[in-house]
Amino acid sequence: MNDASPHAAPTLADIQSAAGLIDGVVMRTPFLPAPRLSALTGADVHVKYENLQATSSFKERGALVKLLSLTAGERKRGVVTMSAGNHAQAVAYHAQRLGIRATIVMPRPTPFVKIAATRGFGAEVVLFGETLAESQGKVSEIVADTDALLVHPYDDAQVIRGQGTVGLELVADRPDLDAILVPVGGGGLVAGIAIAVKGLSPKTQVIGVETELYPSMQAAMRGEQAECIGESLAEGIAVKHAGKLPVAICKRLVDDVVVVSERKIEEAVAAYLMFQKTMAEGAGAAPLAALLSDRARFHGRRVGLILAGGNIDPRLAASIMVRELAREERIVAIRIFISDRPGVLAAISAAIGEHGGNILEVLHHRTMLNVPPKGASVDVTIETHGPEHAGAIMAALADMGYRVERLDPPVTVS
Amino acid sequence: MNDASPHAAPTLADIQSAAGLIDGVVMRTPFLPAPRLSALTGADVHVKYENLQATSSFKERGALVKLLSLTAGERKRGVVTMSAGNHAQAVAYHAQRLGIRATIVMPRPTPFVKIAATRGFGAEVVLFGETLAESQGKVSEIVADTDALLVHPYDDAQVIRGQGTVGLELVADRPDLDAILVPVGGGGLVAGIAIAVKGLSPKTQVIGVETELYPSMQAAMRGEQAECIGESLAEGIAVKHAGKLPVAICKRLVDDVVVVSERKIEEAVAAYLMFQKTMAEGAGAAPLAALLSDRARFHGRRVGLILAGGNIDPRLAASIMVRELAREERIVAIRIFISDRPGVLAAISAAIGEHGGNILEVLHHRTMLNVPPKGASVDVTIETHGPEHAGAIMAALADMGYRVERLDPPVTVS
Repeated sequence: MNDASPHAAPTLADIQSAAGLIDGVVMRTPFLPAPRLSALTGADVHVKYENLQATSSFKERGALVKLLSLTAGERKRGVVTMSAGNHAQAVAYHAQRLGIRATIVMPRPTPFVKIAATRGFGAEVVLFGETLAESQGKVSEIVADTDALLVHPYDDAQVIRGQGTVGLELVADRPDLDAILVPVGGGGLVAGIAIAVKGLSPKTQVIGVETELYPSMQAAMRGEQAECIGESLAEGIAVKHAGKLPVAICKRLVDDVVVVSERKIEEAVAAYLMFQKTMAEGAGAAPLAALLSDRARFHGRRVGLILAGGNIDPRLAASIMVRELAREERIVAIRIFISDRPGVLAAISAAIGEHGGNILEVLHHRTMLNVPPKGASVDVTIETHGPEHAGAIMAALADMGYRVERLDPPVTVS
Repeated sequence: MNDASPHAAPTLADIQSAAGLIDGVVMRTPFLPAPRLSALTGADVHVKYENLQATSSFKERGALVKLLSLTAGERKRGVVTMSAGNHAQAVAYHAQRLGIRATIVMPRPTPFVKIAATRGFGAEVVLFGETLAESQGKVSEIVADTDALLVHPYDDAQVIRGQGTVGLELVADRPDLDAILVPVGGGGLVAGIAIAVKGLSPKTQVIGVETELYPSMQAAMRGEQAECIGESLAEGIAVKHAGKLPVAICKRLVDDVVVVSERKIEEAVAAYLMFQKTMAEGAGAAPLAALLSDRARFHGRRVGLILAGGNIDPRLAASIMVRELAREERIVAIRIFISDRPGVLAAISAAIGEHGGNILEVLHHRTMLNVPPKGASVDVTIETHGPEHAGAIMAALADMGYRVERLDPPVTVS
């Protein structure tokens, strides 16, 4: 379909021929049962591990098909795109492989890790503006000044054609899927998957998943416009305006678009780490978040989750893991009010230890106003077996005569 | 080979028939190229993702083959084993599936997470002793008292036969491997893989990897005994005495056993998370640690790494990710000595911000002896682009007249 208009939707045959183009270059990722996520959700869960791609997301498929669709003359002109994330790395990586000059415009607040990764793949990175919308203005300028070609992250038939190869692999590996849950930002991935899946297995439902902060596709499919604002954990799908071509395809082929809370996205990232030992970025975990949000809908059904990408900030992933332990009360922080004399800390530590708590951290305060002048307070972070155990440890300290408060979440035992 | 002695090594044919027994129950895990680890190490790296098994390690293979080898009468007697980790979960999981009663003896200091997981798979957990060696005494007692059958984690022909199926899959997926790096604790996995691989692809080297703290197999192959002691990050391979049957097999078939430092194991866990978006426990990351420790040996060669398991404590994984950022100086902690008057903290924060540093944490000290009575110090943790950027920020603060010390690692700019 090299001659087709960039505004005409690709066909199943287009996607099938794209699979041949990327074969042996982009990874045919595994699509595997996830028994512990099945036990957790009640669905028969299968996961498509797009986070195993060289640049850790599905974006390489569309980027490579687009680059391969350029003529020799176009390749010489170089390409340009705006992206703070996975599309940037995908274009950079495959442009370098093909000897095409690539310029990526990124918003200034892009995390250092992503800038470094994109430069590492050989692209020229231009930092401009505070948001992707502002970066887009710079892209138009570069296109005008240098004659470079725009590789749009989702509103492009070649890109959608490439992303659709995910759908071919899903159906080839598991023709009996009841539903496929796909993250939706601009809509390129879900549009491509819908064309492939509905062409091969019309009974399989294709369901898009957006974050509650950016429900742009859900609104667009109803012909409405949604308010999109806020800092999302799933920055990969925090897109204010879904692409025109993806919207047109989705209206025709996608069964449903659901919205998930940021809280559920965080829970899904943690579940992937804890139960599947795999790192999903927020956008990549959104489909699991949808499943966790509506277990009844998918109970007993065979569901495919697209783990679309794994490029999560390591500090964020670390904090999500520890926060999850805190939520399960396997880590609790308590404050104990004591008289400021020798031996008290030893007595407290001994009591916690005797009750099987593992002390992780101690902070001793003397100068705060909420203790009497001769008093002090000690904040202790303890690893426990869970809520019941945490309660027993607090009760033991209260029995010793101390006032004890739980700091997170706040519960007082007196 | 149901009738064979538990002390006779399994044959290639035994392992091939085991593959049929576990087919459709234990996952045939993916074995995939890891382009970013290849770029990092200079080898052509492929990873076998055994951490995707239901209980997140290869141990299910041996456990299931062993359980399936029991007669109906033996199954009724129940099974017992000692393990603080993956073997416990594997036996618990498959015993439950097959309706066999399982008792697992774990040392008292076993992390809560692992106890809960093992109980979650339906096994009875008995906490006994401070070490696995002490737990073993309890196992003998239970065997004597209850007539239950011991499922030894590695010194058992059926278990080795099951672990060997990993080797069949490696050769089937990539017959052209130059070397396979396998973690070695008791030696069951490496022994099974060696039988399979040397039978099918004799030119492929099979190399065992041990932690420097527990080089028991390396010593045993030389007929020596090693001193094995200490707290290893790779508790899954912290085994004082390699199994008798594994040692005999390894002497015959394993090309080499190498030892890696704890520091390299930590680096490998971090590299799996950062570059492959996958969670490896210390033992599972040991083969990558070996590759990172001796790049010259494997340069340009096609190497298979067995990512044997992913059951790492979430707090430990979180801390390893953040420590790695600190090592790359993408997070630095500095101490700034200031006069204790209003406005100073604002001036410092502004300077760090202007130089593009992202402040993560601030601690303000007034009562320490290493500052003058009217002075104070501020510890600031900053996210940077790397060493050069960190140095520039420190230099800027020094130019403002402050004494600045780096806390980790300690470097003074004055």
